[in-house]
Amino acid sequence: MNEKKVVGEKAVEFIKDGMVVGLGTGSTVYYTIIKLGQLVKEGLLIQGIPTSVQTEELAKKVGIPLVHFKEIEQIDVAIDGADEVDTHLNLIKGGGGALLREKIIAKAAKTFIVVATPSKMVETLGAFRLPVEVVPFGAELTEKHIRELGCDPYLRQLEGTPYKTDNGNYIIDCVFSEISEAKRLEEKLNMLPGVVENGLFVGMSDIVISLDQNKDVMLIKR
Amino acid sequence: MNEKKVVGEKAVEFIKDGMVVGLGTGSTVYYTIIKLGQLVKEGLLIQGIPTSVQTEELAKKVGIPLVHFKEIEQIDVAIDGADEVDTHLNLIKGGGGALLREKIIAKAAKTFIVVATPSKMVETLGAFRLPVEVVPFGAELTEKHIRELGCDPYLRQLEGTPYKTDNGNYIIDCVFSEISEAKRLEEKLNMLPGVVENGLFVGMSDIVISLDQNKDVMLIKR
Repeated sequence: MNEKKVVGEKAVEFIKDGMVVGLGTGSTVYYTIIKLGQLVKEGLLIQGIPTSVQTEELAKKVGIPLVHFKEIEQIDVAIDGADEVDTHLNLIKGGGGALLREKIIAKAAKTFIVVATPSKMVETLGAFRLPVEVVPFGAELTEKHIRELGCDPYLRQLEGTPYKTDNGNYIIDCVFSEISEAKRLEEKLNMLPGVVENGLFVGMSDIVISLDQNKDVMLIKR
Repeated sequence: MNEKKVVGEKAVEFIKDGMVVGLGTGSTVYYTIIKLGQLVKEGLLIQGIPTSVQTEELAKKVGIPLVHFKEIEQIDVAIDGADEVDTHLNLIKGGGGALLREKIIAKAAKTFIVVATPSKMVETLGAFRLPVEVVPFGAELTEKHIRELGCDPYLRQLEGTPYKTDNGNYIIDCVFSEISEAKRLEEKLNMLPGVVENGLFVGMSDIVISLDQNKDVMLIKR
């Protein structure tokens, strides 16, 4: 059974004619986008807003009409994956590096749906490295301030040079042993000058789609 | 009397041999930098860290040796101007567009000195437009969220296109009638995805150099 495919495809049931849909980035929402492409070919009328250059290309390839922020009033539903989902439906995102755009779109959406296979479901966040997007200017100092919050920070590298986000920033991956107070940590990180955004999504998800112990699709609502 | 010159030059008295000095951006700290250049020619041994491309060029021109973040442990003193200074020594900065780099350097400095002519001293912040640096992606949505905080936001323009900061971002200038709770507003702004940083500097200044009613130099310490 392809868990990612089952979970990802389930999300399309929330999409209706006329909706503006935020399209996430990653290997599970990939299947949502492929499925949406099929439905569009069969007559579904939607407009998509991609969270990354990668997703933009995929959406174009499968024929989902795209729309720009300027042309819309709001996003009806955003669908995205997550690196970790805790029991309060708080998330760590950004393993793929698109956390900022994903967060902008999740916040703008009336309904934010997360597609996550059981391996992503955790009691407490923090086993996954928390990605923090920082401006390149003064990144060494920003890294020092982040370390003072109680983690081991690692500047993400790609072929020997710092990885750059779609926004031209760096990612610092932060190893916390456990994130007990996600909301407080999110605030502390965002208050550091040099931090653009962080991968904690607290209180944002409305519905999480996953699988239960019998591998049946399970909807968890806030 | 050139008030900016008097106030700006006074700041150099805090600079000693061996210091790493953060160099601000603007028309008052301009005189600090010119004066520091003279002192360097006379033998003062310092290393400067500029807050903008503009200041970097000025510092090079007047002969201040520059150093990169990577090479230093901390900044001893940072000197910068402000658009407004209130009675608690909180600031609005960023009229010149360099607020993010200025804030990174101010936070990193052991001592942060503000040079401000009397026209910049106010009872309550807010008559000056508060600059907010935002990522270009989704700027329309971010502007909407900022408006919901109770202001009229204006995307800063330069010759008909959005003004770009040294970091490649936009500036939204926000007209609040009055900013009564600066710390709360700073937090709310920084928690918006898409907001990189804002021009409120709360609890950061250690010393403000200005002029009193007799036009004598006045030091206000926190």
